Amino acid sequence: MITEVKTFPVAVSARHIHVSEEDLQALFGPDATLTWDFALSQPGQFAAKERVSIVGPKGVIHNVRVLGPVRAATQVEVSRTDAVKLGVSAPLRQSGDIENSASINIMVADKEVTIQQGVIIAQAHIHMTPADALALNVENNEWVAVEVESERPVTFRGVVVRVSEDFSLEMHIDTDEANAGFIEQQAQGKIIKSWT
Amino acid sequence: MITEVKTFPVAVSARHIHVSEEDLQALFGPDATLTWDFALSQPGQFAAKERVSIVGPKGVIHNVRVLGPVRAATQVEVSRTDAVKLGVSAPLRQSGDIENSASINIMVADKEVTIQQGVIIAQAHIHMTPADALALNVENNEWVAVEVESERPVTFRGVVVRVSEDFSLEMHIDTDEANAGFIEQQAQGKIIKSWT
Repeated sequence: MITEVKTFPVAVSARHIHVSEEDLQALFGPDATLTWDFALSQPGQFAAKERVSIVGPKGVIHNVRVLGPVRAATQVEVSRTDAVKLGVSAPLRQSGDIENSASINIMVADKEVTIQQGVIIAQAHIHMTPADALALNVENNEWVAVEVESERPVTFRGVVVRVSEDFSLEMHIDTDEANAGFIEQQAQGKIIKSWT
Repeated sequence: MITEVKTFPVAVSARHIHVSEEDLQALFGPDATLTWDFALSQPGQFAAKERVSIVGPKGVIHNVRVLGPVRAATQVEVSRTDAVKLGVSAPLRQSGDIENSASINIMVADKEVTIQQGVIIAQAHIHMTPADALALNVENNEWVAVEVESERPVTFRGVVVRVSEDFSLEMHIDTDEANAGFIEQQAQGKIIKSWT
């Protein structure tokens, strides 16, 4: 039986970093705060004007955007393509699950911080409210497959559902997933719960 | 009804270039020939030792491998990620179908060739013999969906079947598709002919 349900927006997350208060001060100076640039789709989240460079054993990526607000622990989200370029073994993880994830150096001008863990490849996920979950017939932490239509259509079969009153309905994928599926901003996804 | 069939190897094609005799001479000198490095999976095809740089309006990629033998027309196969970096609008095409595809400059040391067309993103495809096609229950030029298992499983829904006695059974995807699906060499694919 195939269960097809209503569609939702698919957003492409470029590489970015969430910083702890301690690392924010170390990189941008004492009493530094993040500078609001623009709001992100999830309530309260924003893109900051601050940028950092991330330096791995094999390569460096400049101009990585910091997202706010500040978090309890610094977390760097990269694509597999980025991880190969940097030379780091970033595991596939849900945001916040950084135990034993990859290490990296973070630099801003002459300041540098080394994080022992925190570099991950973000698991594709769908943010939604409890009402959305009811309408979509899914539960928090459920794994679903999502189809996206395009000139090069793919189905992502390992997508996790994340339900909270604080969320806004939107799927997040990384740039590798977007480029594989020729997915541009404004794309819509559709949950395929089962195809057997 | 779902029809599942036997699996086949999935190979990841990094960016590469096929050169015409004329462009080979222009880039590597009169009477230049391609230097065999190692055999590729498809009979008669080989990786040459020659490398070129490809230069687009927004960026350059060095060390792009030339594949042999020489072809009637020069063709550059890149990923969407590469195309963005280079600043070229490379269309999704089957190999050989380069009419009105993207232009680029190709450089080797102080020599340069500009191709007016030839830059494409290769459509994912499965090479197979007529006997394979019979066993897999598909036909030449048929479009199929292919599942690949991994830690980040995806289904590629726009894959074309290419049948010839000269082929060896193997699916070819590009690096964006591989990175999206965490697909390493030695991965196996499975055709899903229909899920409705």
